[in-house]
Amino acid sequence: MANNEDQFKKVISHAKEYGYIFASSEIYDGLSAVYDYAQNGVELKKNIREYWWRSMVYMHQNIVGIDAAILMHPTTWKASGHVDAFSDPLIDNKDSKKRYRADVLVEDYAEKLHQKAQKEIDKAKKRFGESFDEAQFVATNDRVVRYKTQQKEILERMARSLEKEDLADVKALIEELGISDPDTGSKNWTDVRQFNLMFGTKLGASADSAMDLYLRPETAQGIFVNFLNVQKTGRMKIPFGIAQTGKAFRNEIVARQFIFRMREFEQMEMQFFVRPGEEMKWYEYWKETRLKWHHSLGLGEENYRFHDHEKLAHYANAAADIEFNFPFGFKELEGIHSRTDFDLKAHEEHSGKKLQFFDHETNKNYTPYVVETSIGLDRMFLAVFSKALQEETLEDGSTRTVLKLPSILAPVKAAVLPLVKKDGLPEIAEGIINDLKWDYNVIYDEKDAVGRRYRRQDANGTPFCITVDHQTKEDNTVTIRYRDSMEQERIAISEISEKMQETISFKKWLP
Amino acid sequence: MANNEDQFKKVISHAKEYGYIFASSEIYDGLSAVYDYAQNGVELKKNIREYWWRSMVYMHQNIVGIDAAILMHPTTWKASGHVDAFSDPLIDNKDSKKRYRADVLVEDYAEKLHQKAQKEIDKAKKRFGESFDEAQFVATNDRVVRYKTQQKEILERMARSLEKEDLADVKALIEELGISDPDTGSKNWTDVRQFNLMFGTKLGASADSAMDLYLRPETAQGIFVNFLNVQKTGRMKIPFGIAQTGKAFRNEIVARQFIFRMREFEQMEMQFFVRPGEEMKWYEYWKETRLKWHHSLGLGEENYRFHDHEKLAHYANAAADIEFNFPFGFKELEGIHSRTDFDLKAHEEHSGKKLQFFDHETNKNYTPYVVETSIGLDRMFLAVFSKALQEETLEDGSTRTVLKLPSILAPVKAAVLPLVKKDGLPEIAEGIINDLKWDYNVIYDEKDAVGRRYRRQDANGTPFCITVDHQTKEDNTVTIRYRDSMEQERIAISEISEKMQETISFKKWLP
Repeated sequence: MANNEDQFKKVISHAKEYGYIFASSEIYDGLSAVYDYAQNGVELKKNIREYWWRSMVYMHQNIVGIDAAILMHPTTWKASGHVDAFSDPLIDNKDSKKRYRADVLVEDYAEKLHQKAQKEIDKAKKRFGESFDEAQFVATNDRVVRYKTQQKEILERMARSLEKEDLADVKALIEELGISDPDTGSKNWTDVRQFNLMFGTKLGASADSAMDLYLRPETAQGIFVNFLNVQKTGRMKIPFGIAQTGKAFRNEIVARQFIFRMREFEQMEMQFFVRPGEEMKWYEYWKETRLKWHHSLGLGEENYRFHDHEKLAHYANAAADIEFNFPFGFKELEGIHSRTDFDLKAHEEHSGKKLQFFDHETNKNYTPYVVETSIGLDRMFLAVFSKALQEETLEDGSTRTVLKLPSILAPVKAAVLPLVKKDGLPEIAEGIINDLKWDYNVIYDEKDAVGRRYRRQDANGTPFCITVDHQTKEDNTVTIRYRDSMEQERIAISEISEKMQETISFKKWLP
Repeated sequence: MANNEDQFKKVISHAKEYGYIFASSEIYDGLSAVYDYAQNGVELKKNIREYWWRSMVYMHQNIVGIDAAILMHPTTWKASGHVDAFSDPLIDNKDSKKRYRADVLVEDYAEKLHQKAQKEIDKAKKRFGESFDEAQFVATNDRVVRYKTQQKEILERMARSLEKEDLADVKALIEELGISDPDTGSKNWTDVRQFNLMFGTKLGASADSAMDLYLRPETAQGIFVNFLNVQKTGRMKIPFGIAQTGKAFRNEIVARQFIFRMREFEQMEMQFFVRPGEEMKWYEYWKETRLKWHHSLGLGEENYRFHDHEKLAHYANAAADIEFNFPFGFKELEGIHSRTDFDLKAHEEHSGKKLQFFDHETNKNYTPYVVETSIGLDRMFLAVFSKALQEETLEDGSTRTVLKLPSILAPVKAAVLPLVKKDGLPEIAEGIINDLKWDYNVIYDEKDAVGRRYRRQDANGTPFCITVDHQTKEDNTVTIRYRDSMEQERIAISEISEKMQETISFKKWLP
């Protein structure tokens, strides 16, 4: 746990130091839960997006993309259920006037019980040393058992109350536990109410004619409202998919864990339209296909697992998450949902327009069922970045920080380094860059000793360093150094591009 | 004029019919001045973005990218001047409660005078036939002269009043001209007031703690607030640039001309930081460099021209547009602005933080000057798409519709067509697709006669058609057909990829 927290802190500081992620509007002390992607971050993000896009759109003849606007007709969100049901339970403290998520207050209380239990365990561990049997202690120590039982009971009661929308009981729970305002200690609470998470805005200037709009809280609806237009103009036949990447916004009251849960974030979603009754086959297909995609990046298959939902959203008849082993534990990275015909039917109802497909094989009109794959691009960024960041102890006992990004995703593909800043070596290095830059994002670095430059590129995630030295002038060869193995090889300048291509092509990486 | 209007109508209907652009939320009757990019549109848009990005970031060693959030700290917009000065003059009709742009009401009135004059000209043309001397008629006919003079005077007076911010005179002009509410005929007007064009929203849930935010009206400020973070972590030395693509939002009261002026749009901007005093050199450099970029796409150099601004924005000491010959005439496509140190200084003042660069060559600290290149991605899309759409008369007298997109930008690079749906030809076609799809967006089409499929791909903008026929089974050759020349060639399957690469590589296209 402590190690994971340390690792997470390292991830956050490395992301800033190496130009991956900055707090948004940092000179104005930031905007809570909003982040900017910096010079390396923007490339990693672009590369992840492209890797997803190609695997979905280019690799599947029956999937096409779209790019719908963030602003949509407000009835969209009435139909989708977001106006009525996309909300968090909030509670205000009457004295401090501060507002909190009621469920988070309860979760924090439960977390403290967990920590108390952990403290007892740690104390006992210290006392008994090697001979300590943790499992037995947890099962038999009165205090630990009490803490753990209470924690479990509290969380279960809250889950039940939220499911029944019994907000009065959530408040009762807060009062029974004596939870106070974390800032002021006051226990003078209002009732718990649901607060909608959509950001609102107004279109048009007139007070009378202005239209209440929302920033889309998910990209999926942009696909559903365009279903028929895409099907007809693209002459698509069921089964087919529509893929989309783009920003979505949620006015989270408590946004946490760096870029894991942001108020402005990017989704990569694909909605797959199928014949009713065949959705479970495709649900299984997409679960497997998406897991394979994740595995293809080589971050370690043990870092992924399925979590099948027991409690289903109102629109789904089956749902699973692909969870990833983040620095703060296994959490949702991607969702695969069998959404039935809920969305298309809801839009039919609210728009008065038929959203059906005529199936020539069965000679029938029907509203298709939908299987969705939905992944957070920012979460994917965090997954890749945090797993790639490693501290290695080398043979000579020294350590190096290396960002072992999959080379297909690395922001900078190669750094070209003249051994010294003279004797014509910089000019040769620039010539190499001029040949590579059409196809690759490559950089030039001449500052500091070459060993130090290697370490800088290791920490930067650059898979290749190409060093130009005096021998280059004689035989047109360079040293190519590999980030992960640190091995070096002497190759001809004319071989560089092919050498890189071997390692970095989509054909090599895409599953 | 009439031809241009026809051409523009064709552009809009072709964009829908071939899956390039749909009205947003069309099933809900659309959202005014917001559009969605459809299955081909999303690819063309992506390809334009990538072409710009590579030409800026990959081709220039001293330019890096970022991707800042749409939501920024609100003080950003105070510093930039948008809170105080980013507005349109609006007027309300007291009876109808409708709101209008005052300047547009006046422009529409002036346009009617222009149309009246045109009517007189058309009548005379009809009467006098071949012998009609239009120039002489316009110069001497009393009514035409009166209409034209009045039109000119009205527009000049309004321009003067707006420049002096004399809104009372704009209202006086509306009343003097007797302009009435276009919907109801009422002349009962309020005063003219300035209305801010930024979309507002609120961050956080509590009435007390909610923060008033704006959707960014331009992407440039995301670069300025990150200037120092990028410079330091990226070890950048002046002169250097920061490039960004992303969405911006403007609550336009009157949004017109399809995707030319939208409420939600995407910008591609690069801010180039230079030594004070050297900005004019770089301003000229970027004007030339950007024009070359446009020319590189081969849409015809005669379709671009510079328009140097006489009236400069408050932040600029030089500014020019690259105008493009749209179907509705020459209009701004890209702006190159010498923004001085206005923005960085404003952020220094509002944030209390120094945004300076220590120049090792001059041993001096200074706030850099900025030269900006700013292009609308949607406008660029419209420019490329509208110029590419052509009707050709063929040798046999028939016509074809062809979308002559630059092949580097075309959404689909090749269509693979089995001559017939049997004899194993579809399987060979799929095999070809399976080899190409790693690198190219390629599609399969087996419906209709092959000639009809060629025309469909012409209209779709697909540069290559690859036809598999019975000979293919014998000698592994296919017919490759070129969209623009309609020429056909017999080549080996193994040559297809290289043949495409010759035409489509960034190295071939980037200036």
